[in-house]
Amino acid sequence: MIEGKSVINGKKTHAVNTTSFFTYDANKSSQLPQKYDNATLEEIEYSCEIASQVFSDYAATTSTIRAAFLMEIKAELENTKTSIIEQYKLESGYPEGRAVGEFSRTLGQIQSFVDLLIEGSYVDAILDVGKAGVPDLRKMKHPIGPIVVFGASNFPLAFSTAGGDTISALAAGCPVILKGHPYHAGTSELVAQAIQSAINKRGLPAGIFAHLHGESIGVGQRLVEHSKVKGVGFTGSYKAGKALYDIAQKRKEPIPVFAEMGSVNPIFILPNRLASDSNLPTQIAGSVKMGTGQFCTNPGLIVVSGINTDTFVEELKSEILNGEISCMVHPNISKNYESQLQHMKNQGASIHRSNLDANSPAMGVVLAEDILKNAALLEEVFGPFSLVVICSNNTELTAISEALPGQLTATILGTSSELKDNRQLVAAVQQKVGRLLFEGVPTGVSVTPSMNHGGPFPASTDSRFTSVGTSSIERWLRPICLQDCPHELLPDALKNENPLNIFRTLNNQLTQSSL
Amino acid sequence: MIEGKSVINGKKTHAVNTTSFFTYDANKSSQLPQKYDNATLEEIEYSCEIASQVFSDYAATTSTIRAAFLMEIKAELENTKTSIIEQYKLESGYPEGRAVGEFSRTLGQIQSFVDLLIEGSYVDAILDVGKAGVPDLRKMKHPIGPIVVFGASNFPLAFSTAGGDTISALAAGCPVILKGHPYHAGTSELVAQAIQSAINKRGLPAGIFAHLHGESIGVGQRLVEHSKVKGVGFTGSYKAGKALYDIAQKRKEPIPVFAEMGSVNPIFILPNRLASDSNLPTQIAGSVKMGTGQFCTNPGLIVVSGINTDTFVEELKSEILNGEISCMVHPNISKNYESQLQHMKNQGASIHRSNLDANSPAMGVVLAEDILKNAALLEEVFGPFSLVVICSNNTELTAISEALPGQLTATILGTSSELKDNRQLVAAVQQKVGRLLFEGVPTGVSVTPSMNHGGPFPASTDSRFTSVGTSSIERWLRPICLQDCPHELLPDALKNENPLNIFRTLNNQLTQSSL
Repeated sequence: MIEGKSVINGKKTHAVNTTSFFTYDANKSSQLPQKYDNATLEEIEYSCEIASQVFSDYAATTSTIRAAFLMEIKAELENTKTSIIEQYKLESGYPEGRAVGEFSRTLGQIQSFVDLLIEGSYVDAILDVGKAGVPDLRKMKHPIGPIVVFGASNFPLAFSTAGGDTISALAAGCPVILKGHPYHAGTSELVAQAIQSAINKRGLPAGIFAHLHGESIGVGQRLVEHSKVKGVGFTGSYKAGKALYDIAQKRKEPIPVFAEMGSVNPIFILPNRLASDSNLPTQIAGSVKMGTGQFCTNPGLIVVSGINTDTFVEELKSEILNGEISCMVHPNISKNYESQLQHMKNQGASIHRSNLDANSPAMGVVLAEDILKNAALLEEVFGPFSLVVICSNNTELTAISEALPGQLTATILGTSSELKDNRQLVAAVQQKVGRLLFEGVPTGVSVTPSMNHGGPFPASTDSRFTSVGTSSIERWLRPICLQDCPHELLPDALKNENPLNIFRTLNNQLTQSSL
Repeated sequence: MIEGKSVINGKKTHAVNTTSFFTYDANKSSQLPQKYDNATLEEIEYSCEIASQVFSDYAATTSTIRAAFLMEIKAELENTKTSIIEQYKLESGYPEGRAVGEFSRTLGQIQSFVDLLIEGSYVDAILDVGKAGVPDLRKMKHPIGPIVVFGASNFPLAFSTAGGDTISALAAGCPVILKGHPYHAGTSELVAQAIQSAINKRGLPAGIFAHLHGESIGVGQRLVEHSKVKGVGFTGSYKAGKALYDIAQKRKEPIPVFAEMGSVNPIFILPNRLASDSNLPTQIAGSVKMGTGQFCTNPGLIVVSGINTDTFVEELKSEILNGEISCMVHPNISKNYESQLQHMKNQGASIHRSNLDANSPAMGVVLAEDILKNAALLEEVFGPFSLVVICSNNTELTAISEALPGQLTATILGTSSELKDNRQLVAAVQQKVGRLLFEGVPTGVSVTPSMNHGGPFPASTDSRFTSVGTSSIERWLRPICLQDCPHELLPDALKNENPLNIFRTLNNQLTQSSL
């Protein structure tokens, strides 16, 4: 049941004298009846204090205990699937298929962390024992402390309350204070209840997960400022992400902020591929319109060159402008989309659009020389829009790649021989991105150990870490080295007999052997 | 030959209209005749630009090529060992044994990165291939770009020009712009020449290593501000390190700064151990005075409890205050030492000292209740000084551990049963440190894969990384994922046949197998 209250230390808060807000029925753009209370300063303070108090105990749990906890979260989510999906569709306006797909993806993510914990080698145990002139040194990774996670507007499940940031932090052994996204506060509350129920069932300290409602920017700011918070996970706009980053760096003790702030995800198409691949317009338009353009990896820039650009532009335009499209998650996103489109127009891009409805897909066209003179044309339009850049030759194409700021992804499409002949372009583009595709489209981020979702600034605030896939746990871990530690005080991962049977670097050799 | 000039792109600079400075004969505290030109703005600009220009080419070299380059640096250092050691002793005032020891350590560090590169698995290759519904995804780590490294005052070789920061960045494939420490500019110039000679001999781009002289704070600031610089390595004071960190975070594109800023490295001694171990005063005093107290891991706080504290204090005092001690690296360090001691006195610590010579060792004593009331007593005194904190019980001891800011190290000395009975103290202290010792003293940082030199803020700016040992290469690497990349464009580390024979995570299994 949704009550619009924050939950801290396992208990519903009863904030007095606080402001409140409502979510929207995204399809009808009308306000829903449930009222949500903004978390108060006292509640923020309490959530951080209690998380800090239980940190040591939670950090000391074994990987097996945390794996069982994550499986319990998964089971609780499955138990409440019907009501979660119903609320999700209501608040986001996403269709049934997307809802069910994102729900499964969320469970799949949790399972991947369960597997990681059970396998256990992620602690990166490194032992130097019995080396001449060197003490007994044993290092492994430990959780860094309480983490604040912000729900994302565009993924109410997979990047929100029980999404990748929360689950990776809980897997690492860090308590989480979750600030629900105000666009889908009800969905967030239901998911939080599943997590709280799992905590109860596993007998873990209730303080390891708090769920705060907050529409005002202040709630997030205060959380990031709190001295007991040791890290932040965020997915959203550049403006919001950079603001949180700046707050965190100005603290007396700066803390890491992993903000994934989106990008234009350029697709470069080389001339022969453009001429020979008639599927490109359909494929790319599908990616542009997927989720009504509300994906971090939405391809917002299509860079083409060669004699077939006119035909391509016409075909892509037709594919993008025609067909049905769902509504956007929230009226504010629609509003921003419209103003960003207007901005593109003001910068000199010709904008094509089927009609003037909010959300309706659009395509822009500019010449390479224009975009090389005006970096504003490289800014992201969040929605079902892409800007086609016409290059008169491959030199301009390379120049565009060099003008790009950091990106989550880029795609280079060429025939086999074109790719071989353009190694310099490939190398230049690679320096700008977290993921480089040579086929397909950038939307669709597989949750695999090999995934990298992040990229050079401003795509994310720390390109050395991914926010999708099991490697994302590394954001919340730091190494601690024990020197000459009595064997009975060593954690299992560092014991001579290797009771967890994990891979360890033992005197410079990666091995599962005992000592 | 030392000429007092910066070297950029393999050529000595001929700065006009620049200011200059001199180094000191540390023993006699007198100025040495050689003049050093401060790098000009144009030179700073040029060094960063050229590093950025050669970055792609250097990043594309194989691990084998970089291993051969590092071996060449080692050989060149050995060739010029005599003149380096002579200049080192002159500028630092450290005795022959320390000079030779630090020289060997520096070569040992280089060799450890050679071994790492030859083994090759450090790129953390992760492949997901042939999974249903998932594209071909292959991820590995790549260098992040040009790195600025600052030479450290206290380690003219091992933490300076060819020290851990420089060598780990060059091993990663990042060009380095080295700002020599002005206290030993001549030593730095000789070491830089060895690196430049190695670059020539291996036919690598001259721009991958620049050596800049600079006494003014402005040189370092400008380097960190430069848009082409992508990371910073620093070892030194909190004030300087934090200032560089803040500059880097205020850039349009923030960059990581790995500043290792020292700490007080507390030693906690439990009552029965204090009563039974008569070696402690000699052992601890040796650590306090080692290198005239100019170590990051110098134990500056000794926390004791039990009935034997009076005897311990008297014995430790006698050990610390008696015996010969070398001079400090530079008159400025001596001056700071004196003023920090005065500060301790002003805060109410009783200070014991043998005589009033600059550099002479000192010991302070305070009660636990005083330090719990006054955090200023927890500040570092850089030099041969330690503050003994007398606790009346173990509760006070735990309270001290909780009051501590982040530390590079802490040491807990107890009898076997005391350690078992004080697990909570162990857990509390562990949260504050990068390395926790149960025997011995914190000075002496082994260069092993298991070492962790870094710790929670303010010990270092990013506790997730070490600045000593081969894991320090991770500071300069970021993952890039290739999706559906044509096999002939893949780097060797990601090819099906695993030609480098490295460990890779292949469809969730860590293996050296081919695909």
